[in-house]
Amino acid sequence: MSELKIQRLCVIGAGLIGGSLARALRKAGCVDEIVGCSRNADHLARAQSLGVIDRYEMAPATAVRGADMVVLAMPVSATASVYAGMQPGLSEDCVVTDVGSTKGSVITELRKQLGTLPPRFVPGHPVAGTEHAGVDASFAELFIERRVILTPTTETDNEAVSLVRRLWETAGASVVEMDAEHHDEVLAATSHLPHLLAYGLVDTLATMEERREIFSYAAGGFRDFTRIASSSPEMWADIVFANREALLPVVERFMADIEGLRKAIDSGDREQVLAVFSRAKSERDRFAKLVGRFVKPGDIE
Amino acid sequence: MSELKIQRLCVIGAGLIGGSLARALRKAGCVDEIVGCSRNADHLARAQSLGVIDRYEMAPATAVRGADMVVLAMPVSATASVYAGMQPGLSEDCVVTDVGSTKGSVITELRKQLGTLPPRFVPGHPVAGTEHAGVDASFAELFIERRVILTPTTETDNEAVSLVRRLWETAGASVVEMDAEHHDEVLAATSHLPHLLAYGLVDTLATMEERREIFSYAAGGFRDFTRIASSSPEMWADIVFANREALLPVVERFMADIEGLRKAIDSGDREQVLAVFSRAKSERDRFAKLVGRFVKPGDIE
Repeated sequence: MSELKIQRLCVIGAGLIGGSLARALRKAGCVDEIVGCSRNADHLARAQSLGVIDRYEMAPATAVRGADMVVLAMPVSATASVYAGMQPGLSEDCVVTDVGSTKGSVITELRKQLGTLPPRFVPGHPVAGTEHAGVDASFAELFIERRVILTPTTETDNEAVSLVRRLWETAGASVVEMDAEHHDEVLAATSHLPHLLAYGLVDTLATMEERREIFSYAAGGFRDFTRIASSSPEMWADIVFANREALLPVVERFMADIEGLRKAIDSGDREQVLAVFSRAKSERDRFAKLVGRFVKPGDIE
Repeated sequence: MSELKIQRLCVIGAGLIGGSLARALRKAGCVDEIVGCSRNADHLARAQSLGVIDRYEMAPATAVRGADMVVLAMPVSATASVYAGMQPGLSEDCVVTDVGSTKGSVITELRKQLGTLPPRFVPGHPVAGTEHAGVDASFAELFIERRVILTPTTETDNEAVSLVRRLWETAGASVVEMDAEHHDEVLAATSHLPHLLAYGLVDTLATMEERREIFSYAAGGFRDFTRIASSSPEMWADIVFANREALLPVVERFMADIEGLRKAIDSGDREQVLAVFSRAKSERDRFAKLVGRFVKPGDIE
């Protein structure tokens, strides 16, 4: 693998993901200049003062001028319109990628807004992050040993895919490719549904009368189960609507399964409950081995 | 507070909770002898070889002979029958407590089996644990800064409550009292429902066709959300049935709320979804401050 060399990187969206990628690439010494762009001047000034970006522009078309790589690191709902806005400034060779948690919606919206999917655009999704938002929460190690999923289409330029792959590998990630539809189904199940349930559970409890007291007796299991409910509501509202088509069937399937469990509990069917719990434990233990990271004792009720 | 002094402690159930409490009390130097008891001789031999107990007996009535404190640390469904079995060996002054995750069912079963609730029995629940079971997973620090909830009834002897309180405080816990019904409602919401959902989610995903692949793209959020699904299926099947009356209404309430979210996503009602997510995030952030423990960045998709 030849060394990655970027002369001018433009990061649009000065938040956790964009900021962490900028930090990682700078640390790797593979980028000469990093230009930031965002609708929020305060965020840009903050990113500059932290040394995450070298300078910034508010207008996308100006920000991308002369860049050989552009990373779109903003809510999925804004990606297509920002792409349309920056196009006049894009040089022909510039490679563009995004970091959106849904891929089908980004591709569809781009086709709609631009009339075609640019060959130098590589749809991507780093499966990494924290529940903390903003450039202040960014750090260079965020992507180390994390997965990045690229979902190129038949229109996508192979060289562009290869460059974006090296971009993420330089940041420490492991890169895989799959089609956008499959990505959206897998992420609906493992990420979007859990977020929906965590938000839903905290809200259910919050609207119960004794809520203050309820939360005061919650322990480590509850804390971990609901940690993702501290994520950005705006970003996640965006994601659930952008991935609605893949998400709704898995929500329905899950609800039918929980209804089955509820009925089994109601009717005293211990065998059924034990069968579900046992199957789940065995899969969860397998998953724990798969990710190779075990949690420490002492954290669960 | 006068110093706690136990001459002979009998721990029935040589698992994570019983083992950790034995270790904590021994470390505090407040117990002369610890007698273990369990249906499983291998577990007892293991506990003895680890120094968690000094000696053991298989028969409860023999094990409790001469003990001034007995801790019942077994699945809630077995508590009443073990109590009945040990009664012939119990000295009159001996204080008994349990560690069950449900309290109403334990009290009801004891009344049924014994005809009355013994005044020296103090129903208790340490809100602590890990998803790892067994005496090998036990450690003396498990209860430090954790809550223990005692649910004495009008029949319960005040001096017994005070002794059990000191027992847990000696192990590092903070002790509160409430009635059993309230305990069961609060724990149904913050612990039993999340366990049900975590088991249910992993099982739903495991029965999807692409399960191996699905799990391989799951990240930190999924890992934390489902960690409790690695807990003992037998113990949790016991708990959901023992606390069925408090659990079923909160399951139904949660499902109605998720159905509301599903409809809002289906109909494109972004305001509604955003309102739920925002309320949940604000409550979750408040909870995180309440428990005073923040998670580290780098762990969520």
